[in-house]
Amino acid sequence: MPGPLTLGEIVQRLGGRVAGAPDTLVHQVASLEGAGARHISFFTGSRYRAQLAATRAAAVVLGPEAEGETRLPRIVADNPYAYFARLSQLFNPLVVQQPGVHPSAVVAKSANLGARVSIGAGCAVGERVAIGDDSTLYPRVVVYPGCRIGARVIVHSGAVIGADGFGIAEDEGRWVKIPQIGTVRIGDDVEIGANTTIDRGAIDDTVIEEGVKLDNQIQVGHNVRIGAHTAIAGCTGIAGSADIGRHCTIGGAAVILGHLRIADHVNISAGTLISRSILKPGTYTGVYPFDEHSSWARAAAGLRRKGKKNG
Amino acid sequence: MPGPLTLGEIVQRLGGRVAGAPDTLVHQVASLEGAGARHISFFTGSRYRAQLAATRAAAVVLGPEAEGETRLPRIVADNPYAYFARLSQLFNPLVVQQPGVHPSAVVAKSANLGARVSIGAGCAVGERVAIGDDSTLYPRVVVYPGCRIGARVIVHSGAVIGADGFGIAEDEGRWVKIPQIGTVRIGDDVEIGANTTIDRGAIDDTVIEEGVKLDNQIQVGHNVRIGAHTAIAGCTGIAGSADIGRHCTIGGAAVILGHLRIADHVNISAGTLISRSILKPGTYTGVYPFDEHSSWARAAAGLRRKGKKNG
Amino acid sequence: MPGPLTLGEIVQRLGGRVAGAPDTLVHQVASLEGAGARHISFFTGSRYRAQLAATRAAAVVLGPEAEGETRLPRIVADNPYAYFARLSQLFNPLVVQQPGVHPSAVVAKSANLGARVSIGAGCAVGERVAIGDDSTLYPRVVVYPGCRIGARVIVHSGAVIGADGFGIAEDEGRWVKIPQIGTVRIGDDVEIGANTTIDRGAIDDTVIEEGVKLDNQIQVGHNVRIGAHTAIAGCTGIAGSADIGRHCTIGGAAVILGHLRIADHVNISAGTLISRSILKPGTYTGVYPFDEHSSWARAAAGLRRKGKKNG
Repeated sequence: MPGPLTLGEIVQRLGGRVAGAPDTLVHQVASLEGAGARHISFFTGSRYRAQLAATRAAAVVLGPEAEGETRLPRIVADNPYAYFARLSQLFNPLVVQQPGVHPSAVVAKSANLGARVSIGAGCAVGERVAIGDDSTLYPRVVVYPGCRIGARVIVHSGAVIGADGFGIAEDEGRWVKIPQIGTVRIGDDVEIGANTTIDRGAIDDTVIEEGVKLDNQIQVGHNVRIGAHTAIAGCTGIAGSADIGRHCTIGGAAVILGHLRIADHVNISAGTLISRSILKPGTYTGVYPFDEHSSWARAAAGLRRKGKKNG
Repeated sequence: MPGPLTLGEIVQRLGGRVAGAPDTLVHQVASLEGAGARHISFFTGSRYRAQLAATRAAAVVLGPEAEGETRLPRIVADNPYAYFARLSQLFNPLVVQQPGVHPSAVVAKSANLGARVSIGAGCAVGERVAIGDDSTLYPRVVVYPGCRIGARVIVHSGAVIGADGFGIAEDEGRWVKIPQIGTVRIGDDVEIGANTTIDRGAIDDTVIEEGVKLDNQIQVGHNVRIGAHTAIAGCTGIAGSADIGRHCTIGGAAVILGHLRIADHVNISAGTLISRSILKPGTYTGVYPFDEHSSWARAAAGLRRKGKKNG
Repeated sequence: MPGPLTLGEIVQRLGGRVAGAPDTLVHQVASLEGAGARHISFFTGSRYRAQLAATRAAAVVLGPEAEGETRLPRIVADNPYAYFARLSQLFNPLVVQQPGVHPSAVVAKSANLGARVSIGAGCAVGERVAIGDDSTLYPRVVVYPGCRIGARVIVHSGAVIGADGFGIAEDEGRWVKIPQIGTVRIGDDVEIGANTTIDRGAIDDTVIEEGVKLDNQIQVGHNVRIGAHTAIAGCTGIAGSADIGRHCTIGGAAVILGHLRIADHVNISAGTLISRSILKPGTYTGVYPFDEHSSWARAAAGLRRKGKKNG
């Protein structure tokens, strides 16, 4: 972490331009509301105009269309939110855990750890696992045997990578377990949230491509493929053999059924269940609109009557 | 744990009044169906009348309106369910884990543990964490650096407190990670269920106020605030910066989108997705009514036709 | 694991019959697409006809109605998917963890472990737990005190068995905790997925009968009963005291409310919320059909108007 920086020093490193005094000194980022005289904050839209007017920040980051919204010293950047992300990285480490294997972690001898890998307390890393350079496993991550994780990957606590997929075959009222002999392959620059689970493949591998970002408590079934740079919010469930494209965004608590395909550049709204393939970029939604309970009950009863009719 | 108690001794401790023999001796609580001659059970409504008639319990707890429903010795209390909870506490410990730090737990030197704190096997407690008196972490809880937990808090196994929030900014098709520099603050008397995750704030803190009860597998995003004495059932997901009031109840598997506000005393039904602020107390619902598959398919097709019309 | 087998040797062990050269030698199972000359694959329907035509597998398993679909050496079996499962078991171990207690696991002295039980790294097994012969706990499973697990049970990493149920009683705006004094009883041949949670009973026990298969991230509330040979896909939530029958299938991300009953042989579709008892076998569904966002918005607005009318 560097010491304090002037706005002029910041734009030398990150681009953009300064409006107002370039020697304004800032020590840390902050929200508009939480900022004090040593902080730089950011403004991303008219929704926050009142907070901008009231802020005690020393400076702000904003877009060119908002340059006139304040007289504070400011950095003007085309993508102020991404700029702010990089600015915060100047002041703060992305990963707070030191490299090395914590003595309480259990790492198989046959595992292959890259340079500067960090394995937190209580992790379990199985036989023949490979983990690329500069990757971090926070405490209590489990990686089952044979899985491969790329470089600069961050895995948060409680995540389980490579447990058996849900492969069972019905036989005269009993379930026969299908050995899950595939593995999980995770590309570079992936982040995996706390308590997320990614199952190993039934036969072929489950694949998470580079740059994918997974929030907490996501379930990824066996033989799923998630294309590069797709971001998925928390609590989403993805059933087996779903093939999700690149550059998609999937809102929280969505459900993607199995054996279907989602094209690149598809956005799925939170809470939406996807039951068939989506072959065209766009935004897709399917959630029941909530309402006061009595209004909901009337509308729901109407729906059920419609189902019964001509039944 | 005390030995057996008479109904008379119980009302001396907990209030209420005895109808029938006050020297009836009971050793433990039980359900109406599972009770034997040494047990005291409870009756909370006409739905359980058959079980009340058939029970072999020595005594029951019930409300004044139900006093005539049985001839068994009984304790009459205005809130029989809460009374039963306190009665069970007389016979049973609330927490089954001894105070102290299990030798397999990893607690940072800079962490600050209150009196009689119990840290179970395999827990990981990070730098500068503070935990108040009489709190319990069951095995395999992770608390990331800097988080603060109040007194008498119970955290069940697999919970993860303080992992990074899902803060990413899009920049020319790539995701830039925003350092998550806030922490989590948890008030007194909070309970947190197994495998629940509570993310640290992006800049300011995530806040769980006193008396909040969270069931299992709940996801709480960064910068959420949950007001005091709100109870949330399992599998609910709460997106970033949602501000939830005090004394709310949220049913299981609900979804609360981000950057919205929910007033005090709001009840949200199970499975409901909340997509805008709720400013008025009341009960809110939004779930698709289930039906036999064929009836559902007809109603769903009608809905989709309605969406296409005038499109 | 045996060495390679001929088709003739396979049918001697597993039944079915060979069409084509019975001395065809195979070393491992594979998907139609991933197979090479040493592999045997399987074909379960016309959807995969192109892959069957293009496969480089040495042999395939298929049903009698599909016998003419290929000229490859083949095994004809009435239930080709279940046959393939058993065939894969010939070549691959069902469990990849050795018997014994890993030194980093914490097992209470009073726990009772059967023969050949395998307890992985970092597991925590509480007082008076019983685990039957040949059961496997993968790394980081927690079993709270008093729970009983049958024989040949597989529990994946991060699962938590026996945490407190969500038992709270409201008393003048505060929540009173109800001690959870039941346990969890799990039958033989059950499999439990990663990060799944099964709560202990409030008073009586939570019961998972023999042969039940639970996928990842399922939440099972206190006093639930799941009948024998029922299979439940990932992310499903089951509220307290739900009584689910035998031989049911429940799709992923379903929600089963509490205090209701589901008959034997019921199938519930993915994403469906079950709000009342189901007393008749059949398939039940209730999900909002997704659509392009604009079409969805029109249909949803119509639904909300219907709720307001006559309100």
